Amino acid sequence: MEALYEKMDVEKLEIIKKELQERYDCFKKKGLKLDMSRGKPGADQLDLSMGLFDCNTGVKCYTTLDGTDCRNYGIVDGIPEAKKLFADIMEVDASEVIVGGNSSINMMFDTLAYGMTHGMAESYMPWGKLPKVRFLCPSPGYDRHFAICEFFGMEMITIPMKIDGPDMDMVEELAGRDEYIKGIWCVPKYSNPQGITYSDEIVDRLARMKTAARDFKIMWDNAYIVHHLYDEHDNLKNILSTCKEAGNPDRVLMFISTSKITFPGAGVAAMAASENNIKYFKKRLLKQTIGYDKLNQLRHVLFLKDMDNIHAHMEKHAAILRPKFKTVLDILEKELGGKNIAWWSKPRGGYFISLDTMPGCAKKVVEKAAEAGLVVTPAGATFPYGKDPDDRNIRIAPTFPPLHELEKAIELLCICVQLVSVEKVLAARKD
Amino acid sequence: MEALYEKMDVEKLEIIKKELQERYDCFKKKGLKLDMSRGKPGADQLDLSMGLFDCNTGVKCYTTLDGTDCRNYGIVDGIPEAKKLFADIMEVDASEVIVGGNSSINMMFDTLAYGMTHGMAESYMPWGKLPKVRFLCPSPGYDRHFAICEFFGMEMITIPMKIDGPDMDMVEELAGRDEYIKGIWCVPKYSNPQGITYSDEIVDRLARMKTAARDFKIMWDNAYIVHHLYDEHDNLKNILSTCKEAGNPDRVLMFISTSKITFPGAGVAAMAASENNIKYFKKRLLKQTIGYDKLNQLRHVLFLKDMDNIHAHMEKHAAILRPKFKTVLDILEKELGGKNIAWWSKPRGGYFISLDTMPGCAKKVVEKAAEAGLVVTPAGATFPYGKDPDDRNIRIAPTFPPLHELEKAIELLCICVQLVSVEKVLAARKD
Repeated sequence: MEALYEKMDVEKLEIIKKELQERYDCFKKKGLKLDMSRGKPGADQLDLSMGLFDCNTGVKCYTTLDGTDCRNYGIVDGIPEAKKLFADIMEVDASEVIVGGNSSINMMFDTLAYGMTHGMAESYMPWGKLPKVRFLCPSPGYDRHFAICEFFGMEMITIPMKIDGPDMDMVEELAGRDEYIKGIWCVPKYSNPQGITYSDEIVDRLARMKTAARDFKIMWDNAYIVHHLYDEHDNLKNILSTCKEAGNPDRVLMFISTSKITFPGAGVAAMAASENNIKYFKKRLLKQTIGYDKLNQLRHVLFLKDMDNIHAHMEKHAAILRPKFKTVLDILEKELGGKNIAWWSKPRGGYFISLDTMPGCAKKVVEKAAEAGLVVTPAGATFPYGKDPDDRNIRIAPTFPPLHELEKAIELLCICVQLVSVEKVLAARKD
Repeated sequence: MEALYEKMDVEKLEIIKKELQERYDCFKKKGLKLDMSRGKPGADQLDLSMGLFDCNTGVKCYTTLDGTDCRNYGIVDGIPEAKKLFADIMEVDASEVIVGGNSSINMMFDTLAYGMTHGMAESYMPWGKLPKVRFLCPSPGYDRHFAICEFFGMEMITIPMKIDGPDMDMVEELAGRDEYIKGIWCVPKYSNPQGITYSDEIVDRLARMKTAARDFKIMWDNAYIVHHLYDEHDNLKNILSTCKEAGNPDRVLMFISTSKITFPGAGVAAMAASENNIKYFKKRLLKQTIGYDKLNQLRHVLFLKDMDNIHAHMEKHAAILRPKFKTVLDILEKELGGKNIAWWSKPRGGYFISLDTMPGCAKKVVEKAAEAGLVVTPAGATFPYGKDPDDRNIRIAPTFPPLHELEKAIELLCICVQLVSVEKVLAARKD
């Protein structure tokens, strides 16, 4: 379908361009200074977890139910009650959980570092000794995943995202024939940045597919596992049990953290996997550390309590976030709706709204916004090597700014989208 | 010099053996259950830091001086006030510090992992791509250091410990000619397990020596940097400034933690090195994590305050530990003194007393103690691959048990030493 501007004559386009330019200049004069580049919770969200500090009273605050003094050394894979809580969140058994430090990305990084120096449990040799290691990267996706692959010199293969998950025909075809493909990155629920939740069929196919590599791993970063925005939740099929049923119990490694449940700087992360995998990862862990911060684990158990309480807590987050997401969507609709120059996601959870411009416009939009004082995630960041092949995708992170700043920011972004689109159409006319 | 038992005839020896056996059996009947295997602080020491929990009140508890909200994402290398505090402890500049998570061994592990996948800043290639990587291991030393080398398949070379540090003639000779030797492990102050503090000459020679490898690293685990037992402190020369003066500023990587200052399970670790090195290590860190637990860093700054306060705090630890060390030394002297069958360290700080038996006795002593319910660090653990070439060294960790249990434990250990020694002499006679 033609974009609105493509139906207009040059004269009309020049008028629209002039109007947009005036609005843009007006913003520029205001001297905005806004950073929307990362998916950070706002301070009001952090205040929801101040109760964590009240857990530090009495003996209960440092002793586990089985009597372990959390202040002292010991327990490398997490205190029992934290294992139980994370098992409940991830819908796995406590024996399938390792509770870690404050960062799930650190656990993912360490996992691939292990792969490079030793391989996985099933590997014939360390990945670092292979001529090539390749990773499948559904995109748009999470830039920090791609950065880890790049750091370890892994070759990234972009997999297009469809409406219900990665293009599985392509995934099956590639993973099925290339033994150097060692895994795939997935943010399976309220995905970063599109807010997509994988369908049951995608989960089934990931669990069942034939892989040329016997040590192929699904890196299942379930960062938004309980991060719903509305009463109606997306449902994600349990991939660990699906993998078990498919006869591939060791294929998936699941990761979550409380970063966006409690404190991003001081939460608790965990991984879950088959007992075989847990046993293998503990081999490294036992050499790497004497144990993670058990006091923080216990503090989180005392504060988060159980699933009912976690859902009630997450509803408080949602109450803060809903108006922000609504504001962004309303302004996008008002400014860009029906023009066929931009398309955006309407997620039911997670931390992002994904905005696609006309091809070849995203970089220019981001630059223009930056000139007027609005920093968004760099265009291209959601693709391997920071290169969006169509230069279309922009990640909007609406959570951190207060509402009145968010309004201004998104209006400015929309002006930039329109201005760059008009300029693109005009340039094509002049060719 | 001959051992006492070697001067006795068989008859006398059999009588002594019988007496010792009776004492041993008596202990065995008591059904002791004591674990002295690790250098853990006692609960009374942990109580000294309960004030950490009181730091969690008011806005001050989560905001740095420069206004950063420690609850949220950000700052990968430590909050400014924590950098300053650790810089003061380590006698370096704040720009030469990375503040980490709760475990310094984790930072050391990550350092060698970095070496394996990427090498150090000066490396021609990743260590993992070399035909061999070797590490110098002054021994007796810390088993967790050796375990990291073993995990990464590094070949360990045992360097004998002399009275003031490692045998530097051997270190210089080996490091000077073998380019696959990539580093040396050092616990330079109140060393684990001997309590030795490196002399200025040792520090000078380590800093100055020629190394065949341009990427040779001194892993300077200064775990007991402020852990004095008496008013008179051992002094350790600053190796970073010494390395700078010697023209080798990038040679040393220093590590410490508050594990034995505050809570072993929930303290704060840090590394210090030249700005070049810090820059290089931050490259990995920026991919590995979004940041360590800044709340715990801030909590520690608020609690520990400054060097004067840290020294006053450590004096409280020392007051608890001195009677324990005295008890062990008194019993060792009473049971084993003058017999020339065992030799032990009299440290002025740190966490251990190192006990050497007659050659070939340590394993049997440890086994015998275990049979009677006393677990000590496995014999050999203080050497690479867990193999003490002379089977002599036993690490005594007096800190964890309460005094009355410690007394029993050391008496039992001494009985075992004597019994095994008598048996050894008797066996030699019968040959």
